[in-house]
Amino acid sequence: MSDELPVAPLAELRRRRSEKWRAFPGDVLPLFVAEMDYDLAPPVTAALTEAVSRGDLGYASSTPELGQALAAFAGRQWGWELDPAQVTAVTDVGIGVVETMRALARPGDAVVISPPVYSPFFDWVPEVGARILEVPLARGAAGYRLDLAALEAAFATHPAAYILCNPHNPVGRVHTADELTELVRLARLYRVPVISDEIHAPLVLPGATFTPILALPGAADIAVSVISASKAFNTAGLKCAAVVTAGPRMAQAVARFPTNPDDRVGHLGVLATIAAFTEGDAWLASLRATLAQRRTQLVDLLGSHLPTVTWTPPEATYLAWLDASALGRDDEPRDHFLSRARVALEPGTKFGATGAGHMRLNFATSPEILTEAVKRMATALP
Amino acid sequence: MSDELPVAPLAELRRRRSEKWRAFPGDVLPLFVAEMDYDLAPPVTAALTEAVSRGDLGYASSTPELGQALAAFAGRQWGWELDPAQVTAVTDVGIGVVETMRALARPGDAVVISPPVYSPFFDWVPEVGARILEVPLARGAAGYRLDLAALEAAFATHPAAYILCNPHNPVGRVHTADELTELVRLARLYRVPVISDEIHAPLVLPGATFTPILALPGAADIAVSVISASKAFNTAGLKCAAVVTAGPRMAQAVARFPTNPDDRVGHLGVLATIAAFTEGDAWLASLRATLAQRRTQLVDLLGSHLPTVTWTPPEATYLAWLDASALGRDDEPRDHFLSRARVALEPGTKFGATGAGHMRLNFATSPEILTEAVKRMATALP
Repeated sequence: MSDELPVAPLAELRRRRSEKWRAFPGDVLPLFVAEMDYDLAPPVTAALTEAVSRGDLGYASSTPELGQALAAFAGRQWGWELDPAQVTAVTDVGIGVVETMRALARPGDAVVISPPVYSPFFDWVPEVGARILEVPLARGAAGYRLDLAALEAAFATHPAAYILCNPHNPVGRVHTADELTELVRLARLYRVPVISDEIHAPLVLPGATFTPILALPGAADIAVSVISASKAFNTAGLKCAAVVTAGPRMAQAVARFPTNPDDRVGHLGVLATIAAFTEGDAWLASLRATLAQRRTQLVDLLGSHLPTVTWTPPEATYLAWLDASALGRDDEPRDHFLSRARVALEPGTKFGATGAGHMRLNFATSPEILTEAVKRMATALP
Repeated sequence: MSDELPVAPLAELRRRRSEKWRAFPGDVLPLFVAEMDYDLAPPVTAALTEAVSRGDLGYASSTPELGQALAAFAGRQWGWELDPAQVTAVTDVGIGVVETMRALARPGDAVVISPPVYSPFFDWVPEVGARILEVPLARGAAGYRLDLAALEAAFATHPAAYILCNPHNPVGRVHTADELTELVRLARLYRVPVISDEIHAPLVLPGATFTPILALPGAADIAVSVISASKAFNTAGLKCAAVVTAGPRMAQAVARFPTNPDDRVGHLGVLATIAAFTEGDAWLASLRATLAQRRTQLVDLLGSHLPTVTWTPPEATYLAWLDASALGRDDEPRDHFLSRARVALEPGTKFGATGAGHMRLNFATSPEILTEAVKRMATALP
């Protein structure tokens, strides 16, 4: 495991001032919010250090480098040829999704989401005055999938948009090219724009293949990708993401964004993103290898210490969606483990009602912290 | 002038990657956007350097320290006692104003602004579906003032809000306590919420006194302050500002902001703001002294080299609102100076139609750059 990314000692991590390290008392192991414990990618550190030393903290200027860097990265990573001129910087993926919806939906319109899904989706839809139409993922022996038949029924009611989570947080599913091809067919048939949250795309782990929605035939007319370096390079607090379009119809929606999106984008976020997408491939490969090791370790740890907790190891992300309903506790087993094990996971119902009995665990940490967390949980079993 | 803040050589400044240094070719002196050329305040540099070295770039956590730091700073600087619990972090002042308006205004409602005024005000009002009602500043021999009689007439038509600019950008006016007291009386009488953009408050120069709107009797029921360290400490790209309320009525509007505002706030912005407001007083005093020197220098330079350009030196900000209408050119003299003098100023009509014939010049630079800019302009007179 010598090629794994390093993690600072816990006492050093606790000196971080981000949400992950501030939300709970010092005796709690925080494995909740999606922030990693690894050191930064060296190109990101270099870009930020230089900017700070120059006093270079003014208003962001994202064009044309941000789009160029993303296009080059997407080409190398996924063979996705995107047009740098159709990349618009936004504060974060949330703002990208919200402003796209605001351009597409009228008050009272329905917007479809597929729970269990990233909890802010439940806030973003009402933020623009729309209402949520839930089409849960289908759940089978092999894990979660898009429920394409149920999506077709929902699309037939003419919702204003569908927010896809690709790869899907919290379940870690990498939707296949076949599934997404069918989704695009349905979206075109019923004229339902697809807003694809692709923030976890760089975190597809060995064994799975990411399909960018806009790389599919016909998607350009009906889909928007919202993507960021922030999840894979651990820069959520720098506030930079990108909305990508591939044709005039969706570009018109982006053109209705509030004037000069760059004003609301983090300048250091832009610089970090350019550095990450330009010089970050080697570090990212190490990260994915490290996360694959942690995924394997978590399989072993849960099998040994918490066999009644079941899960399907994720194909992407560093998030484990754990089914603890067999423990026979209430709908929110996370509360028990927080109070008794002093381990903070995300509560399952935060991702929708279908998350009852579940918890989301962030395994982007050291082997030692992961082991300690699972052992604490095992000792505190209800 | 040995106590003036240092400015890096122009060749070094040009290596900054912010909007100021990217918008124009390398032969143009950029004196347009409100970014300063000084080195950062040492406490800000220290906070950012530590965060980057720790890989501490995750989601922001602003409470309670951001409110506490602002309250302490406001108490020391202005004797303003504010409640840290009524401080809400937002992405920037623009988002603070926009989200407050969205909570207060319905589509089609009027929102009053007083041009010439910070140009994004013209975007923010339509962004929430409201319409602009202009009540221009009154202009007299001593410069610009709020036109309180015209504001009363406008308030009598029941607009949804008034966006105050306090101190006023671009004219540099620090509204007096008497003027603001009368404004609050009118706002209460006609029940018009006042959203006060106070981003330039820390940049009130020697000779003037800042009055926080919420420090006035009766303002708590009717006013919100939106404030940031970003302008005075040159961190616009870090994306952190604060909305401050002083009573339950306005707090209700803030409570309608999208869920968890911290998600959209720059983590490094929070850290820089806390450092600036906690340990930045001495540096800020040096900055204000430096800016007062530049203001005096600009009086001399314009008097010597461009006597037909008239202005009232600002009481606050590092922005000079220059009346070039006597040059007899068209409504946008800035275009002439950009193309002929290779000096970029902000075009006057960007601040409203009343800005015709005007230009805004940013003098937060070195004596040498300021001299060079004015001399270039004098050489290129139409």
